[in-house]
Amino acid sequence: MKKSPVASRFPDLGAISGVKLASIAAGIKYQNRSDLMLARFCPGTTVAGVFTRSSTASAPVLLCRDHLRRGEADALIVNAGNANAFTGKTGRLHCQKTCGAVAAAINCDADKVFVASTGVIGEPLKIERIVDSIPVLAGSLNAAGWEDAARSIMTTDTFCKGAGAQSKIADTAVTINGFAKGSGMIEPDMATLLAFVFTDANIPSRLLQELLVESNAQSFHVITVDSDTSTSDTCLLFATGRAEHPAVNHIDDELLVDFRHSLQAVMLDLAKQVIRDGEGATKFIQVSVGGAEHNRAARVIAKSIANSPLVKTAIAGEDANWGRIVMAVGKSGEQADRDKLSITIGDVLIAKHGQAADGYDESQVARHLQRHEIRVAVDVGIGHGAATVWTCDLTHGYITINADYRS
Amino acid sequence: MKKSPVASRFPDLGAISGVKLASIAAGIKYQNRSDLMLARFCPGTTVAGVFTRSSTASAPVLLCRDHLRRGEADALIVNAGNANAFTGKTGRLHCQKTCGAVAAAINCDADKVFVASTGVIGEPLKIERIVDSIPVLAGSLNAAGWEDAARSIMTTDTFCKGAGAQSKIADTAVTINGFAKGSGMIEPDMATLLAFVFTDANIPSRLLQELLVESNAQSFHVITVDSDTSTSDTCLLFATGRAEHPAVNHIDDELLVDFRHSLQAVMLDLAKQVIRDGEGATKFIQVSVGGAEHNRAARVIAKSIANSPLVKTAIAGEDANWGRIVMAVGKSGEQADRDKLSITIGDVLIAKHGQAADGYDESQVARHLQRHEIRVAVDVGIGHGAATVWTCDLTHGYITINADYRS
Repeated sequence: MKKSPVASRFPDLGAISGVKLASIAAGIKYQNRSDLMLARFCPGTTVAGVFTRSSTASAPVLLCRDHLRRGEADALIVNAGNANAFTGKTGRLHCQKTCGAVAAAINCDADKVFVASTGVIGEPLKIERIVDSIPVLAGSLNAAGWEDAARSIMTTDTFCKGAGAQSKIADTAVTINGFAKGSGMIEPDMATLLAFVFTDANIPSRLLQELLVESNAQSFHVITVDSDTSTSDTCLLFATGRAEHPAVNHIDDELLVDFRHSLQAVMLDLAKQVIRDGEGATKFIQVSVGGAEHNRAARVIAKSIANSPLVKTAIAGEDANWGRIVMAVGKSGEQADRDKLSITIGDVLIAKHGQAADGYDESQVARHLQRHEIRVAVDVGIGHGAATVWTCDLTHGYITINADYRS
Repeated sequence: MKKSPVASRFPDLGAISGVKLASIAAGIKYQNRSDLMLARFCPGTTVAGVFTRSSTASAPVLLCRDHLRRGEADALIVNAGNANAFTGKTGRLHCQKTCGAVAAAINCDADKVFVASTGVIGEPLKIERIVDSIPVLAGSLNAAGWEDAARSIMTTDTFCKGAGAQSKIADTAVTINGFAKGSGMIEPDMATLLAFVFTDANIPSRLLQELLVESNAQSFHVITVDSDTSTSDTCLLFATGRAEHPAVNHIDDELLVDFRHSLQAVMLDLAKQVIRDGEGATKFIQVSVGGAEHNRAARVIAKSIANSPLVKTAIAGEDANWGRIVMAVGKSGEQADRDKLSITIGDVLIAKHGQAADGYDESQVARHLQRHEIRVAVDVGIGHGAATVWTCDLTHGYITINADYRS
């Protein structure tokens, strides 16, 4: 049913000093698979987070936002199978119970426990199964287990998503590991994005937050499968501080150049894995927009193209239907001048200055569209704003996953 | 392949004094069907228009906007098969040639000719076929022929869309006839909406424009098939002035109450026919939002629900997946408080005050979802803003129409 363009293999992630992990089959919803993971952090671990902007955010998102104000993390607990979203006061209570149980089991501060949940919306969590599993998890924490942890937060992801990098701050080696889930569908729920990134770098929480926001803007913030924003999207970055590098205090510090680059690379890698596993996806599509009024305008135009059902179905059909790209630029609401617009698919200039390019050969474009990785580039021709967005095509697989499984 | 929920029959439209119509098979793209229509208006006919907000609008849209400034119309010419969009200077020239040919054939002012085109984007129009057909059209103008005219502007519409009403201004009988096309797909083009409404009422052009904007806001402006805005959307309203009623000068005139109501009814009827013929549609969906901060916010929330691929696929699958409605409210960007939100499908209250409603019985909702006409109602619970939007479901049919036909 589902044909992923390129199912990445989980990378060989080593330990991160100060992070221990465990996962377990708690039976929250799924049978015979792990669905609950716990990470424990050494004292002094800082944390940064970015979350869904939804006004109907889930209980765990509200809790994380609250706990984030302290800037420190002792633990992270994540379950799959139930999103604990639109569950009213019960949802809040369940989050508090979870934090309390983790605090008791590993002897930490409940206010420094972070929670994320993904799965069905509107059903109360089987909280007793989580609470009962926590002491078992606490007893099996270990420095390996990255792939197991990543596997335990999957819903209908078809592969397990992880990325890592070795970086340096001054001459000190620093490690970054991350894993993520999205965007499968197995029950009446939605494609939640969860991403967790861990490092042994020693970075104060305020700076960590700046770094996360910066990398997020160039990774998870510029991918889209179907334009639908989850109630539960969560990306957390934990820094244990175990690496003994010189102090870093501001984002423009020379010492951080390599680390910023590596963090960006890890997060972009995870984001692209989510797109490769987009529901029903058969094509991985890069949409680059240049020449826009400013960068924000370029991103809006790129998203308008990437979210257009007509563009996405044309690419699914391997059809060089560039009129739909013109349409998507036009509807974006951003400044554009039809007569300055150019469009390139693959390496072929299709349209230039408001009309079909001279000598345009559709057969060359058709060959590019048969590939798994598709590149669309638009030059708006009016300014210097640029942005790149990644998406996937819209196929029968998407309809089958989201409409057919329960009718 | 395509299953329309309810294919309306074309209504029995009578003559409108001052309007004559003709249509012909010009061979612009299709074989063996009419694809070009001409309407001629009596002197003094006023005109109002609303158009796509796309920044890559087609040549005919730009021409109509320009001609509209005079407020008077002598003729309307519409072709199907080629949108004359993204055709650069050639596109403008083709519009001018068309207007010149019409002016010569019916002895009118070229600046008072209105043009609309729908079909493939980025290909030059076969202008000679249009120009050659115009004298033939001019020779066959007649007061009937509404259905023929409506049929000649279809692309892959599965049925021909028309609506009419008898109204009164003071004690004078006034007639309103309209026809529209949208939103089929047959080639690399997009689902253009064209709508033309005609009346014998005697209404100055500035007032006519106000009336059109008012009715459009409650009809074509609140429907969506797939969130993609055409380069060519055009709705024109022509008033021949032949009905001998007392003068009307402002929109709040008591004499206009019945006419405004009838105009609104005709345009909403046409708009709903477009939705019933939405690509791949099997369900006609009404989304009503109340209790929003203001009316505009209500419309944004309703559109967010109506455009969500996850909501549309859930309804296609007859799945009472109300979590996706919560998600769509949350992502809309408008003010909402999760704990004040209520959701009703059909007549069943599903969720109230931020969680599943007490005693909610999914089987009742499942029965409603098996129908062709689906009602979704959301009470945001924070204000008095209200709006209703109409849409259709997202099915394999949509993918088949838009991805499969040319691969």
